[in-house]
Amino acid sequence: MALRVYELVGAGDRRFSPYCWRTRMALAHKQLTADCIPCKFTDKELIAFSGQTKVPVLVDGDDVVSDSWAIACYLEDKYPERPSLFGGGYGRSLTKFFNIWVDNEVNSKLIRMVVKDIHDRVHPDDRDYFRASREARFQNSLERVQAERPIYMERLQQSLELVRPMLHGQPFLCGQSPAYADYILFGTLQWIRCSSPLEVLEVADPLHAWRERLLDAFDRMARGHSRL
Amino acid sequence: MALRVYELVGAGDRRFSPYCWRTRMALAHKQLTADCIPCKFTDKELIAFSGQTKVPVLVDGDDVVSDSWAIACYLEDKYPERPSLFGGGYGRSLTKFFNIWVDNEVNSKLIRMVVKDIHDRVHPDDRDYFRASREARFQNSLERVQAERPIYMERLQQSLELVRPMLHGQPFLCGQSPAYADYILFGTLQWIRCSSPLEVLEVADPLHAWRERLLDAFDRMARGHSRL
Repeated sequence: MALRVYELVGAGDRRFSPYCWRTRMALAHKQLTADCIPCKFTDKELIAFSGQTKVPVLVDGDDVVSDSWAIACYLEDKYPERPSLFGGGYGRSLTKFFNIWVDNEVNSKLIRMVVKDIHDRVHPDDRDYFRASREARFQNSLERVQAERPIYMERLQQSLELVRPMLHGQPFLCGQSPAYADYILFGTLQWIRCSSPLEVLEVADPLHAWRERLLDAFDRMARGHSRL
Repeated sequence: MALRVYELVGAGDRRFSPYCWRTRMALAHKQLTADCIPCKFTDKELIAFSGQTKVPVLVDGDDVVSDSWAIACYLEDKYPERPSLFGGGYGRSLTKFFNIWVDNEVNSKLIRMVVKDIHDRVHPDDRDYFRASREARFQNSLERVQAERPIYMERLQQSLELVRPMLHGQPFLCGQSPAYADYILFGTLQWIRCSSPLEVLEVADPLHAWRERLLDAFDRMARGHSRL
């Protein structure tokens, strides 16, 4: 029976959730195909069976797994004979740290830089929900939050400066081939790419060439998705 | 021929460099013994043969390696049949990230919290050098830098909050047994333990129990070293 993934959908069928991109790339890495079922922010009843309210949700036979990190661990344990996402126990532990770090130090800055752009590209049915929930979170209007972009751009670049040395002498963060840590940060950049005209990577940035490699990975799976 | 490590020494023969502790723990992990040669901050001529001015410096036959990260990579590659420090290529890449993160986000905060305490415990010959170089770096007196401790304690705890989830369900950061990422952060905590009365970990903190485990590792090698 085919796997199913419930993933966030925006206006014009765009798929922009960073966490759903982590799962998409992880499935491709494991050479698994899945039916992707689009789910709006306000389609909570569609994933109520998972016992929580957020995508991605993976359904694999009788197994239901939510949260992108839990899904990656599930895939690694359920399909150990397929290419590894973590490269063993130490790698899993350290990838978990990288996952937490990206969520806390990268995504938290980026959301402030593009929150109005995202609003304009979520599904029309979701716009009121998105504005109300994000304005409550930031205690400010989306417009005013995004206007602080230059401050957060500087902080973002300082955080990315910790990642760039990983590409010294190797094409991917994890080494000669990509693994789940690559997909974690790639998901973040794909999120921006699909939801804002903002470009956070200069062409000369080694992370730019790295992102190009991942856009080409798995038969250019991610490249066809963009803000256009 | 026995390995030699040049390492920082303070007053009363104390060994407090976080980077030298990384190397000590890495050698023990690889089941290698080394002669530890004490070296004051101002003993630059003692390690001039290494072509640079910082400890640790490892001498293994004809090989001379400086910088704790380069030493860890050297040991992993030179002694591959011994217990692994990284657990493979993905693990090495991710440990490198963890190394950069600890240096930038943990050590940089901690030095400000204990810089006067360290001054009081460096070798008497090094005190003038230490005060002058650190006051130039911080553009402030050691006393005034350390007086800002509460601000940096709060920031430090926020950073450590990213590490604590690694200990969910496992006794070490890397899993069921410690590896080099454990020694990276342990070196930092041992540095504080050997150079200041400050306690940065509450007894209920999972990192406290983790540090106790590493103090007991390798026949309690690190436990005998403290500020006393």
